[in-house]
Amino acid sequence: MSTTQEQAPGGLADQDHSGAHGYATDKEAYLKRLRRIEGQVRGIARMVEEDKYCIDILTQVAAINKALHAVSLGLVKDHMSHCVVGAAREADATGNPELVQAKVQEATDAIGRLLR
Amino acid sequence: MSTTQEQAPGGLADQDHSGAHGYATDKEAYLKRLRRIEGQVRGIARMVEEDKYCIDILTQVAAINKALHAVSLGLVKDHMSHCVVGAAREADATGNPELVQAKVQEATDAIGRLLR
Amino acid sequence: MSTTQEQAPGGLADQDHSGAHGYATDKEAYLKRLRRIEGQVRGIARMVEEDKYCIDILTQVAAINKALHAVSLGLVKDHMSHCVVGAAREADATGNPELVQAKVQEATDAIGRLLR
Amino acid sequence: MSTTQEQAPGGLADQDHSGAHGYATDKEAYLKRLRRIEGQVRGIARMVEEDKYCIDILTQVAAINKALHAVSLGLVKDHMSHCVVGAAREADATGNPELVQAKVQEATDAIGRLLR
Repeated sequence: MSTTQEQAPGGLADQDHSGAHGYATDKEAYLKRLRRIEGQVRGIARMVEEDKYCIDILTQVAAINKALHAVSLGLVKDHMSHCVVGAAREADATGNPELVQAKVQEATDAIGRLLR
Repeated sequence: MSTTQEQAPGGLADQDHSGAHGYATDKEAYLKRLRRIEGQVRGIARMVEEDKYCIDILTQVAAINKALHAVSLGLVKDHMSHCVVGAAREADATGNPELVQAKVQEATDAIGRLLR
Repeated sequence: MSTTQEQAPGGLADQDHSGAHGYATDKEAYLKRLRRIEGQVRGIARMVEEDKYCIDILTQVAAINKALHAVSLGLVKDHMSHCVVGAAREADATGNPELVQAKVQEATDAIGRLLR
Repeated sequence: MSTTQEQAPGGLADQDHSGAHGYATDKEAYLKRLRRIEGQVRGIARMVEEDKYCIDILTQVAAINKALHAVSLGLVKDHMSHCVVGAAREADATGNPELVQAKVQEATDAIGRLLR
């Protein structure tokens, strides 16, 4: 278990990648990261079983929080560069600006849930 | 001082509003909200001066956190619906996709600072 | 996977429970909760594999954040009611106030890592 | 406005300071810090008035979040080293353990509100 902060997976994925969510091009990076977080959660369960010191467990929980934040940020970024930008194009092509508004609102709500 | 959660100011602002930041159309709403937060901070200083109970002060700090989150969310939303969407259009018009990437990265970094 | 907020495990554990960490009396509750979080993380990996919508994945990440917060809070509470209170007694018995200071500082640092 | 993280005010205050809340010995440090946060909030209002770039405003909001976290942490620490520890002593003297439980629960609830 490491506490080092990592980069969010998935830089700005291929803009032309159509018919799939933004994170699709980085799927392996996300899966690897999630398997790692799963291992960290199991590691904390082991610490509880072995009666480790509560403060050390809290430190590991903070490390998982950070790792989850990195995953969230990657997803938010992929959403913006694919779904929001894609909706902007479709809105322009179809003359339907509500499409963008809906995607932006959805992203804002999702970010709001992360901030809480 | 109230602890009720509030809506983020500035619904999706006018998409045709060019030459200004997204929040410009909601300036008054943001200023009103910020003046309120300023008053809340002053209220906490007053509680400290009057030796109020620490837990009650912490409750007020949590209320300010929430109010600041609402301001942040409003700015993030305005940024997405103006700057990101605007960059998407400019990128299409000029054939320069790096423009969008830069705006999305900037927004991601800003959201990352809020999550921390 | 549910997004409902749950109570932190481990109410104030037995004050007379000596020779073990505070969470020891609630070990099973913590383990159950951690296994549940582990399952939630696996559920997110499955969503990524099945190309689920990014916003829905973000909603599940927010649910894990909440579940981890509840675990953290439980540990913080147990730490206070056992380690801090225990140190206060030992400090009084031995005339060594630094003991309490060290425990309080340790708890403060741990809470600070959670806030970030 | 600076974004540098600062130490929480009020190291472990005088343990013998009775009849007042923990933060009382650090009152000036808290007030100075709160006045500074108030100035930061005013600075953000000025940025909105002057149509500054939304991302730069978000950076300043993140700086205020950090400054408020430092204040919160200081209050939590003072609460633990005074109110919780004080209750532990009173509980021992009076044979009334519920006193500690109440203080610990109150602190846990306050920390929970900060985590959200």
